[in-house]
Amino acid sequence: MNAPATPAHLLPGAPLRPVPDAFIDALRARFGEQCSTALAVREQHGRDEGSIQAPPPSAVVFAETTQDVADAVKLAAQWEVPVIPYGAGSSLEGHLLAVQGGISIDVGRMNRVLRVDADDLTVTVQPGITRKQLNEAIKDTGLFFPIDPGADASIGGMCATRASGTNAVRYGTMRENVLALEVVTASGDIIRTGTRAKKSAAGYDLTRLIVGSEGTLGLITEATVRLYPLPEAVSAAICSFPSIEAAVRTVIQTIQLGVPIARVELIDAQTVRLVNAHSKLGLREEPLLLMEFHGSPASVKEQAETVQDIAGEFGGNAFEWATTPEERTRLWTARHNAYFAGVQSRPGCRCITTDTCVPISRLADCLLDSVAEADASGIPYFLVGHVGDGNFHFGYLIDPDDADERAKGEALSHSLVARALDMGGTCTGEHGVGIHKMDFLLQETGDGAVDMMRAIKRALDPKNILNPGKIFAL
Amino acid sequence: MNAPATPAHLLPGAPLRPVPDAFIDALRARFGEQCSTALAVREQHGRDEGSIQAPPPSAVVFAETTQDVADAVKLAAQWEVPVIPYGAGSSLEGHLLAVQGGISIDVGRMNRVLRVDADDLTVTVQPGITRKQLNEAIKDTGLFFPIDPGADASIGGMCATRASGTNAVRYGTMRENVLALEVVTASGDIIRTGTRAKKSAAGYDLTRLIVGSEGTLGLITEATVRLYPLPEAVSAAICSFPSIEAAVRTVIQTIQLGVPIARVELIDAQTVRLVNAHSKLGLREEPLLLMEFHGSPASVKEQAETVQDIAGEFGGNAFEWATTPEERTRLWTARHNAYFAGVQSRPGCRCITTDTCVPISRLADCLLDSVAEADASGIPYFLVGHVGDGNFHFGYLIDPDDADERAKGEALSHSLVARALDMGGTCTGEHGVGIHKMDFLLQETGDGAVDMMRAIKRALDPKNILNPGKIFAL
Repeated sequence: MNAPATPAHLLPGAPLRPVPDAFIDALRARFGEQCSTALAVREQHGRDEGSIQAPPPSAVVFAETTQDVADAVKLAAQWEVPVIPYGAGSSLEGHLLAVQGGISIDVGRMNRVLRVDADDLTVTVQPGITRKQLNEAIKDTGLFFPIDPGADASIGGMCATRASGTNAVRYGTMRENVLALEVVTASGDIIRTGTRAKKSAAGYDLTRLIVGSEGTLGLITEATVRLYPLPEAVSAAICSFPSIEAAVRTVIQTIQLGVPIARVELIDAQTVRLVNAHSKLGLREEPLLLMEFHGSPASVKEQAETVQDIAGEFGGNAFEWATTPEERTRLWTARHNAYFAGVQSRPGCRCITTDTCVPISRLADCLLDSVAEADASGIPYFLVGHVGDGNFHFGYLIDPDDADERAKGEALSHSLVARALDMGGTCTGEHGVGIHKMDFLLQETGDGAVDMMRAIKRALDPKNILNPGKIFAL
Repeated sequence: MNAPATPAHLLPGAPLRPVPDAFIDALRARFGEQCSTALAVREQHGRDEGSIQAPPPSAVVFAETTQDVADAVKLAAQWEVPVIPYGAGSSLEGHLLAVQGGISIDVGRMNRVLRVDADDLTVTVQPGITRKQLNEAIKDTGLFFPIDPGADASIGGMCATRASGTNAVRYGTMRENVLALEVVTASGDIIRTGTRAKKSAAGYDLTRLIVGSEGTLGLITEATVRLYPLPEAVSAAICSFPSIEAAVRTVIQTIQLGVPIARVELIDAQTVRLVNAHSKLGLREEPLLLMEFHGSPASVKEQAETVQDIAGEFGGNAFEWATTPEERTRLWTARHNAYFAGVQSRPGCRCITTDTCVPISRLADCLLDSVAEADASGIPYFLVGHVGDGNFHFGYLIDPDDADERAKGEALSHSLVARALDMGGTCTGEHGVGIHKMDFLLQETGDGAVDMMRAIKRALDPKNILNPGKIFAL
């Protein structure tokens, strides 16, 4: 994907901060070959899956233990150098960019499962393990970790961005599924934010303060997360609809009836075409819902029948079932590749990805108005969504060398966010703020709430070394 | 209930802070008859359902609007006088006590439902509405608010203490069920912490920072909470067991199998005797589980059969069903009155209430060791628990005039907490820290985490006027 230089208005005002040679020398002395200043390594750690660019970090430390992370942060604190935690590199909003300079702390080698408490439905892991690695490691327990943001993200990164994905409608987001964290603070101290108890009223909820803080309040070095029994029965189905509205109304009624559907994804007709082309599928090129039901065989049957009845009322076709695990995997992989299918459909394009989420009652209005606006603009786009949560993603595919398209794309994105906020929604359901959505955050919460965030940031990171320049300008 | 003076070691070190006459005059000028300095009113607002005492606040402001709260806090900030929010007065850990002096802000008159969004399964309320008032107000929507801490607490207070109760095993706690808050900050500014979107990754999770902050970071003036469709079918059942262990093993296996049981409460044999005497019930005086199942008729039947099978393996008797709503209400009222049944069984006693919560795999060990210890002490007690969450309450019923009993009771409480922490649990599942559990919090989280809480407190309330002397000593 073509990645243009960062638009000036997206970069926080602060210039690059000095990274003294003596600091790099101290890092090398402590970390030896775990510290790299090779350009290729630095460049790889200075970007994410988004399209914004910044100069790479000055060095990368490959942490292997919590103490490594703590020591690196202590050195950085001493020299007042920014540190940016790096997991799998799959974030989308510029979270990993060294916009004020500094170093990257890569926790990818910290990818072990530390303890499985199958009887308690919890697991404690290091931050660098990815969700797929985690599920592979626990596959013999009869349990699984459901949160599925599409990318094979690291658990630490998923905590840091408050990730969710296709299963959140049933199992919640990282907000609901993290029990406790070990965190390295801005001074390099190591704290624990909770216990393995399922609930607690013991003081401030530091766990949920760190979840979603995007590396700006502490570096996550361990996470205890919830697991779930693998459902006895799983069924996936596709249902095509005559219109987006019909599909969305089906979802709204399903949620309002309290059907515990495990996944329900909308793909609009032209995105189905892109996905068909990219993943060699033969899906009917109409708006469709891709659904999954989990439970006992009787419960799955009951859920599916209820939703089929609702879909029928709105003109949905008969469900097409994906009965084998392989068929299900193929469908979900195709869904997760919608982003790439979109981007590859227009070679050289830049994708402006959006992430709005609205109360479910406003979902149809929000989607239909946004589709009409996108169609009128002439900008190609794709549209997918975790519609059971009211969360959806337009990807506007612009030619980055065409100033008119860039302006149109940004205008679409702004208009979409304004519409979602008007409807009681949020500018980001799951991707986080990073660099890209700082203005939107302010628009969403107002100055007072962002001032409260700033006060917390200043209190916990007085030297502003933890991933500075993200979420808000200080 | 007899309420002795606060043990000196439980009071934070800070002495009473001055409340200048000029400040009281300013309050009167702004609030007129909404401000009272009558001793009876002040005394009523200077205590909670716990047993610790402190001098009453100097005045009580009866707020009727968010602006009232903001104006009262602005005046308090100007004079550096502590403010303590007051809802229904049902907290247990000394949350409402004016341990450093100051005024009480009673939000009981702010008890309106502001908007019901039935299609979104959300409601926005003022903080003084109680959970029963809320459910009464929305009864025609087909929805309900499940969180049920026993007491008819205010929603604002339930947010402030991160309350939960009998339904939490299925529906979660206030942590999971608050979408957004309106909050008056220490400077008297009004902020909103979230939107009505079901999920969000937009900046720090201020909602969950305020939930459980016990009035020390801001005063809640509005709350948007989740509602649920009233289940199509509800069944309640009692099952008696030959031992506590048999009952608990049944619960553990039920949870581990993923049965979505809505309530599962343990009552030990002697507490059944107390409850029988207090509520005129004829329950079999053996350890029992009081359960409730929610869902479609087929799902409820399936759940109940599964649990009956598990109970049978552990020697449980046949389920006795409470089929009518009246019978269910009678049983749950009896359960909620267990505390009063216990306290009234020993006239003049003081109850040391505990609130530990452990990972479910350790629940049987923790309970059995704690029962053995309590039996050996000779101190009368009651034992009830939201055992599906690993949360349970011993109430040690001591004679407050007997130094030996006081010492034994405190020793039991300390030993219970130490045991729970050893097992990966927490000192408070749902009551909060208040005054009483400050030492336990430190023991649970360590200095580092409490230092982080202190840093947040100092940043957001630099004059330390918001319910000072609670959760931790500054």
